[in-house]
Amino acid sequence: MADPRFFDNVGPFSHPRIAELTGGKPARACERSIADVAALDSAGPDHLSYCEGVKFRSALERTKAGAVLVSPALESSVPATAIAIICDQPSLAFAKVATAMYPDACLIWPRKKPPVHRIAPSARVGEGTVIAPDVFIGEDVEIGDDSVIGPGVVLGRGVKIGRKALLGPHVTISHALIGDRCIVQSGSRIGQDGFGYVSSASGHFKIPQLGRVILQDDVEVGANATIDRGALSDTVVGEGTKIDNLVHIGHNNRIGRRVIILAQSGFSGSCEFGDFAVIGGQVGVADHLKIGAGTYVASKSGVTRSLEAGKVYGGYPARPIEQWRREVGTLARLTKSRSKNERDNGKE
Amino acid sequence: MADPRFFDNVGPFSHPRIAELTGGKPARACERSIADVAALDSAGPDHLSYCEGVKFRSALERTKAGAVLVSPALESSVPATAIAIICDQPSLAFAKVATAMYPDACLIWPRKKPPVHRIAPSARVGEGTVIAPDVFIGEDVEIGDDSVIGPGVVLGRGVKIGRKALLGPHVTISHALIGDRCIVQSGSRIGQDGFGYVSSASGHFKIPQLGRVILQDDVEVGANATIDRGALSDTVVGEGTKIDNLVHIGHNNRIGRRVIILAQSGFSGSCEFGDFAVIGGQVGVADHLKIGAGTYVASKSGVTRSLEAGKVYGGYPARPIEQWRREVGTLARLTKSRSKNERDNGKE
Amino acid sequence: MADPRFFDNVGPFSHPRIAELTGGKPARACERSIADVAALDSAGPDHLSYCEGVKFRSALERTKAGAVLVSPALESSVPATAIAIICDQPSLAFAKVATAMYPDACLIWPRKKPPVHRIAPSARVGEGTVIAPDVFIGEDVEIGDDSVIGPGVVLGRGVKIGRKALLGPHVTISHALIGDRCIVQSGSRIGQDGFGYVSSASGHFKIPQLGRVILQDDVEVGANATIDRGALSDTVVGEGTKIDNLVHIGHNNRIGRRVIILAQSGFSGSCEFGDFAVIGGQVGVADHLKIGAGTYVASKSGVTRSLEAGKVYGGYPARPIEQWRREVGTLARLTKSRSKNERDNGKE
Repeated sequence: MADPRFFDNVGPFSHPRIAELTGGKPARACERSIADVAALDSAGPDHLSYCEGVKFRSALERTKAGAVLVSPALESSVPATAIAIICDQPSLAFAKVATAMYPDACLIWPRKKPPVHRIAPSARVGEGTVIAPDVFIGEDVEIGDDSVIGPGVVLGRGVKIGRKALLGPHVTISHALIGDRCIVQSGSRIGQDGFGYVSSASGHFKIPQLGRVILQDDVEVGANATIDRGALSDTVVGEGTKIDNLVHIGHNNRIGRRVIILAQSGFSGSCEFGDFAVIGGQVGVADHLKIGAGTYVASKSGVTRSLEAGKVYGGYPARPIEQWRREVGTLARLTKSRSKNERDNGKE
Repeated sequence: MADPRFFDNVGPFSHPRIAELTGGKPARACERSIADVAALDSAGPDHLSYCEGVKFRSALERTKAGAVLVSPALESSVPATAIAIICDQPSLAFAKVATAMYPDACLIWPRKKPPVHRIAPSARVGEGTVIAPDVFIGEDVEIGDDSVIGPGVVLGRGVKIGRKALLGPHVTISHALIGDRCIVQSGSRIGQDGFGYVSSASGHFKIPQLGRVILQDDVEVGANATIDRGALSDTVVGEGTKIDNLVHIGHNNRIGRRVIILAQSGFSGSCEFGDFAVIGGQVGVADHLKIGAGTYVASKSGVTRSLEAGKVYGGYPARPIEQWRREVGTLARLTKSRSKNERDNGKE
Repeated sequence: MADPRFFDNVGPFSHPRIAELTGGKPARACERSIADVAALDSAGPDHLSYCEGVKFRSALERTKAGAVLVSPALESSVPATAIAIICDQPSLAFAKVATAMYPDACLIWPRKKPPVHRIAPSARVGEGTVIAPDVFIGEDVEIGDDSVIGPGVVLGRGVKIGRKALLGPHVTISHALIGDRCIVQSGSRIGQDGFGYVSSASGHFKIPQLGRVILQDDVEVGANATIDRGALSDTVVGEGTKIDNLVHIGHNNRIGRRVIILAQSGFSGSCEFGDFAVIGGQVGVADHLKIGAGTYVASKSGVTRSLEAGKVYGGYPARPIEQWRREVGTLARLTKSRSKNERDNGKE
């Protein structure tokens, strides 16, 4: 499922090869080879997927994957169309297959010797577009008309940049599709590896990040921000969304249109943000949450649960802002009266 | 009012042109053209300003602007020396005029074709100053004696750098005046667009950022920090102030002398910080506040109100630190006694 | 004690020179010159150290330094093997000597004129290693086999990079030793000055940062992170530790093996983190603390005290997470019942 413009798949892999990589035991023999890796809900008959944890059981039951790495407890939920491959830690087994199939997934700069072109001969640059010196433009990159690409910008292979885009100095973009009129200020990093590991007693095994970043039209990104690409799906920023300096957007987040994200906020991963949401500065958002359309999250909030549309939240854990304000007031009053009591009782 | 060393004004604009750009209705005819845009308190007779919200009424009454964009409710407060131009959303109308007058305000790298000089012929570099390779120095830049400019540094047109300054690798500076003996560590970004938009149902309209950044002498900036330039005024950092890594300083902040700002703190905009203030790490400061001289703000505080000089604050919202500590203690004690009661009553 | 691969020592200094630099008064005459500066616990007979504050008295009593800058109150604790040099602010006096002895300690790019080599002739690059264009490799740098160095990377003099390492675009590394298979994503900064000043009424005097950064094998660092080098000792990141985007690691931190540090967390300095600790996102850690092995710190926590091994903490100040959760619940309940009382009493 990884976009071949960005990733080289060295598969397909035979089932014996999968078994060798994972130590997993296939429930039955199979001639069909595995062409790719994918999530349960997007996998097809040529794909290997995995399921770890009973909360994903229903996704497992519906998967169209040709093979699934599962723990023994989930074997009975694997559909008849899929081969169950039984293993102790399916996420680790899956990461090992993905790593073997995409051995260079984490490279931004290609592991090959010169000749090196600053601008790859296969790149297409639109009319009226200005490219500053020291810019690197990888193979098959496309840039629309009337854009300005600042000095030192690095565009990895296959990246698309729309029309009238502005990329400030030292911006790095890989594995990404960038819309028209997008502005990315100096030093922002788009499309690098998300932070994904499978942990065990022997350490943290890196999960290849095989998704992309998509910035729709009119998105603006401040200076020194970071937007990681997806793991198996994409990180998406909707049309007209504005992102301030030093913001971190982790992998697989899907941000709606015309969202405002103030400086130094960070989103861990796999969240959905509705259109016109406003996220204050230094906000943190835990993973796999839904933030409703038009929701306003006050600065420095820590969001640990999904938030309803059109409401205002604050505090950590984030709660309706009136509740948070009342709680702040309650604590101040209780403390004052306690202090008074202690003074009245002659205590410090 | 925008500094012509950094910005190209394509005005002046006639009143009919202003009307066309804004849809605003001038209260009376006027021959005089508009040479520039400016804030109410700094505008002169050739300038267009705007007023949105009754809290700025007194500034409106005192303005020397030649024309002012106002909502109908404020028309009566426009001084006789100014033409009132009535419109629904004066801030949006103003942003549209500013954008038309400064169409390239958000460009760091010029939108023109080669010949490209790494060091513009009009730039002046002091004696004993070392310039690493791959440095870009724009038109009319001046660098004092005995400075060191690291590899990949980008200095936008008109930037001034003092004597004995050190700029680390990949530093980007535009629209800025940097004093003597300043140190900017690797990857910091100074002078890019502040985060300013006028929002409406159709999205967020970018407000051209027409101010500058001024770092006085002996300022130090850590690695990967961001200091945005002002919107209509300047962002100023006073002499001897030290700024740690990954700090964000939004537009229009005015920071005093010898202030300490620890890592990852962020200031939203238009605040004033007195001399010798100390701001801990990961502090957030809301906009339009005053932080007194010598004030100490504990790490991770969220400052939502102005703070008195010489005091110590902590918590979110930031309050006198003793109060915050007592409140933390109160909550712990109340929780402990509640738990004890529940245990005594046989409840979990 | 500063590593001569990274720092040029212009000493030794005679005692009269020390007296001139510091205004300090030696307790007795001494012929022996001072070859270096060092912390009390690592200084030898040729070294100058300092002691400020009675809490360091026992370290002072045990020091093997040849000379120690001390305040009058501590003179009696200086061992017989050391010359006491009495001064008002020993830390400032020490910083002045260190600055004089290492005048170029804060330079990443050498203060010398061309010829400039992109890759210094004395650098050694391993077989199979790919170096992108516009990379700067300082004197005596060593890079192992099969590494990939992205465009614009700057490696300061003496830096060592292991085998199979990946450095993304624009990474800056100085004063550092980087292990095998380390990955550093785009724009991260490793080895720049820590944030160290001696403050007085006349401002903040910069303390030369004379330590290093050591990343052991299999460390990964996200995008736009910052890891400062040590002041007199080293900043160390243990084998297999994974660091997310925009993390700040201040000087002298010692981080164990296989630690996980999520995005935007910051460590002020001189802390120790045990193996397999997990630090959530946007966590702050004050200085000189110990975080036990396997400890889990929830996102957005503020750690102000050392934390026991193997436990889970949350909140600010960080406390056992169950306690923090109960406290959050207590406050919500008290506020609800107060609101109910007020409603029952007919008040808003």
